[in-house]
Amino acid sequence: MLVAIPLFPRVTALDAVGPYEVLQRIPSIDVTFVGDRRGEVRTENGMLGVACDATFDEIDAPDVVVVPGGVGTRKLIHDETISGWLRAVHPRTIFTTSVCTGALLLAGAGLLDGLTATTHWRAADLLNELGARYVPDRVVEHLPERIITAAGVSSGIDMALRLTELLVDRVAAQAAQLIIEYDPQPPFGAGSLAKADEATVARATEYLQARQ
Amino acid sequence: MLVAIPLFPRVTALDAVGPYEVLQRIPSIDVTFVGDRRGEVRTENGMLGVACDATFDEIDAPDVVVVPGGVGTRKLIHDETISGWLRAVHPRTIFTTSVCTGALLLAGAGLLDGLTATTHWRAADLLNELGARYVPDRVVEHLPERIITAAGVSSGIDMALRLTELLVDRVAAQAAQLIIEYDPQPPFGAGSLAKADEATVARATEYLQARQ
Repeated sequence: MLVAIPLFPRVTALDAVGPYEVLQRIPSIDVTFVGDRRGEVRTENGMLGVACDATFDEIDAPDVVVVPGGVGTRKLIHDETISGWLRAVHPRTIFTTSVCTGALLLAGAGLLDGLTATTHWRAADLLNELGARYVPDRVVEHLPERIITAAGVSSGIDMALRLTELLVDRVAAQAAQLIIEYDPQPPFGAGSLAKADEATVARATEYLQARQ
Repeated sequence: MLVAIPLFPRVTALDAVGPYEVLQRIPSIDVTFVGDRRGEVRTENGMLGVACDATFDEIDAPDVVVVPGGVGTRKLIHDETISGWLRAVHPRTIFTTSVCTGALLLAGAGLLDGLTATTHWRAADLLNELGARYVPDRVVEHLPERIITAAGVSSGIDMALRLTELLVDRVAAQAAQLIIEYDPQPPFGAGSLAKADEATVARATEYLQARQ
C-alpha cells in the first residue's frame, strides 16, 4: 500500500511527519514524499530541509494521500500542478486526507465542495470561502466520499491512527500508537481555541505574525 | 537562543520534528539540525530524507540540545564524535535533553550517570546498563543538572512544551501548544506499555522486528 505525502516550500514539518511516523510503522505500508520536482524543500521558516523523493508525475496511483499544511499552502490553492494531481489521483485512492491547512489544497482542487471539513483554527474562514463547511472538530471523516481532514498540525497523529484502523485493523492502529508511545500528557490545556485563554491567543497571534 | 538537534542515519523523524515544531514557533528561538557532515540523512526505514545544516564542529555552543532517538542510536552509543560533542557542549547549555532512545546517547556520553531518566519502553534495560535509572514517566526532568529526558517518540512534544515554559514563560508554551493545536484526542488508549493489551504489544513487537 502506497501513501503519498506532498511536500512544498514552507510546509509545516509536523503536519507531514506526524502521519508518516504512524503509517510507516505498518510493514505493509510504504510512504513516499512527493513534490513538483525531486530534492529538498525547506519548511515554514527555512530551518529544516526535507526531501521529495518523487515527482507528482511519477506517483499517479497512490492508495492514500495525506496533504500537509503550512504557510506555503496559500500560494498553491489554485496551483494547477498540485490541484490537477489531487483531482487526477483522488478517484482511485482508498482515502484522500489532509492535515491543518492542507485542507485548503483539497478545497482548492474542489474535493471538499459542500462537505464539512476541519483545518487549522486560523484558516476556518478561508476554508469556507473555498466551498467547504468548516467545523472545529479534530478529525472529520466522510467515508463514502473517502475524504478525511484533520485540524491543526498535531492532529495529524490522531487522524493517522484512525486511518490505520480503517486501512488495516484496530490492533494495527493500537500497535502504531504503542510504538510511537502516543500517551499524550500535555503540561497545559491550551491546545484549542475553545480552551486557550485570551493571553495565550494574543501571544499565539503575535508569534504567527512574527514568523510569517 | 539556539537549539541544536543532532540527526544521524536511521533517526526517528518525529523524535526530532515534534520538539522542533514546538520550539521554532517562538520567535526568539532558532533551531539548527546538526550532523557529522552536512547534507541529507535518511530516517529509520529510509523513507524520509532530512537535512543536516551544520556539523558538530560548527555548533560548539548551543543553548539547548535535543537528541532524538531511532534504530540508528545503537551504533552511536560509544561513537566519539557525538559523545564527545555532547560532553563538550553540555557544561554550557541551558538544557540538554533527549527524546526516545536519544537517552541512550546521553547515557553513552556519561551525562545520565546515576540519574533517573526515561526512554522508549523497549530500551529500558539498555538505558539501565548504561548507568541511568529508567523510570516509565513521560518526561523526567533534573533542573539542577539541566537534563530532561522524554519517553518514546511522541513524548518529545510534551517535553518541548515544558522546555518552552522553562526557557521563556508559560504563556509562550501555551501559545506554541495552541499554534500546533495540541489538544490530543487519540482514538485508542494503547499509548503506553501499561495501557496496551496483549494483542497490541504482540503486534507492536512484530512490527518493530519487521522494520529493524
